[in-house]
Amino acid sequence: MIKTAVFISGRGSNFTVLHENMKNGVIKGAEVCAVFSNNPAAAGLEYAEKEGLPVIVIPSGGRKDREAYDAEILEAIAPYKPDLICLAGYMRVVTSVLVSAFKNRIMNIHPALLPAFPGLNAQKQALEYGVRFSGCTVHFVDTGVDSGPVILQAVVPVLPSDTEEALSARILKEEHRLYSEAVGLFAAGSLKVNGRRVEISE
Amino acid sequence: MIKTAVFISGRGSNFTVLHENMKNGVIKGAEVCAVFSNNPAAAGLEYAEKEGLPVIVIPSGGRKDREAYDAEILEAIAPYKPDLICLAGYMRVVTSVLVSAFKNRIMNIHPALLPAFPGLNAQKQALEYGVRFSGCTVHFVDTGVDSGPVILQAVVPVLPSDTEEALSARILKEEHRLYSEAVGLFAAGSLKVNGRRVEISE
Repeated sequence: MIKTAVFISGRGSNFTVLHENMKNGVIKGAEVCAVFSNNPAAAGLEYAEKEGLPVIVIPSGGRKDREAYDAEILEAIAPYKPDLICLAGYMRVVTSVLVSAFKNRIMNIHPALLPAFPGLNAQKQALEYGVRFSGCTVHFVDTGVDSGPVILQAVVPVLPSDTEEALSARILKEEHRLYSEAVGLFAAGSLKVNGRRVEISE
Repeated sequence: MIKTAVFISGRGSNFTVLHENMKNGVIKGAEVCAVFSNNPAAAGLEYAEKEGLPVIVIPSGGRKDREAYDAEILEAIAPYKPDLICLAGYMRVVTSVLVSAFKNRIMNIHPALLPAFPGLNAQKQALEYGVRFSGCTVHFVDTGVDSGPVILQAVVPVLPSDTEEALSARILKEEHRLYSEAVGLFAAGSLKVNGRRVEISE
């Protein structure tokens, strides 16, 4: 059973889906060992507490030394012995402190087909660019912004009538499926990082 | 019947497909009025001559003033009265001289899902990045590199076993279909550019 620490900043819709899918067996061999938030008001914390999951909150407001902040996180999560960290709408850039302690063991999901539209408001960026397809990407986290090795991607059409909300909802549905699949592959030991490429064994 | 000038630099596989599809009616309401090449050795010129199409060659070697070069092209193609210019593996960046004379009337096809992997060797870029999906994009040409408004896109999977050749072949098949569809939409008057977005009417 691999232990997963989930990092959130808001409602953490991907967090709740991951946890539900671990409970119902859609994701095999993984469990949530702790939920971390940089935001004391993150809506996902309520769900975590209701589910009896350990919760850690370290407010990031005013914390300018990102390395020191990440070192504090490392210390706080250590007792829960995570094998994997899943970012789920975690709004802070992760520094080398976390990345080297969890090399190829931090995942993120991004609502675009990276390397297109990294950073904030990816769905809005896609609509403004005028692409015909977008999607989502699960990737390992490096110290860049949404730049790490790609684990899985899913494609959705962008429709002429799309608003940001409509496109976001279409992508979010795929995010929930894709993130669960990626965590399942990690738990099964099926992911091997080779340079920038992630090899998936059956 | 709209008149199309096709610009090539090499074999022009998209050019031959466009011309064949205009002849056999897959593309309705369009014909090739002239073929332009900056390269006297472009393999596509042989096909053009065999098909009895007017051919214009202005060698670009040593031509550093791109605006002057493009002005010369403009003059050379004027007698054929093109409504549309289709770049088909044309390896020179087009300047504002051509772009303003043919505003939203120059199309290009690029073997990636733009804005991902613009420029040369898009398929190789995609493999090296490690994406799970790539594809091709037909877009109107502006003065940037593969940066104009997107007309159509098509998606193909990137397989673990893919070589650059295998991925390129899979994308090329889609290019042929997609470029023909885009030219047909243009000929039918169905494309309207609104800022960066291309609206397609039925």
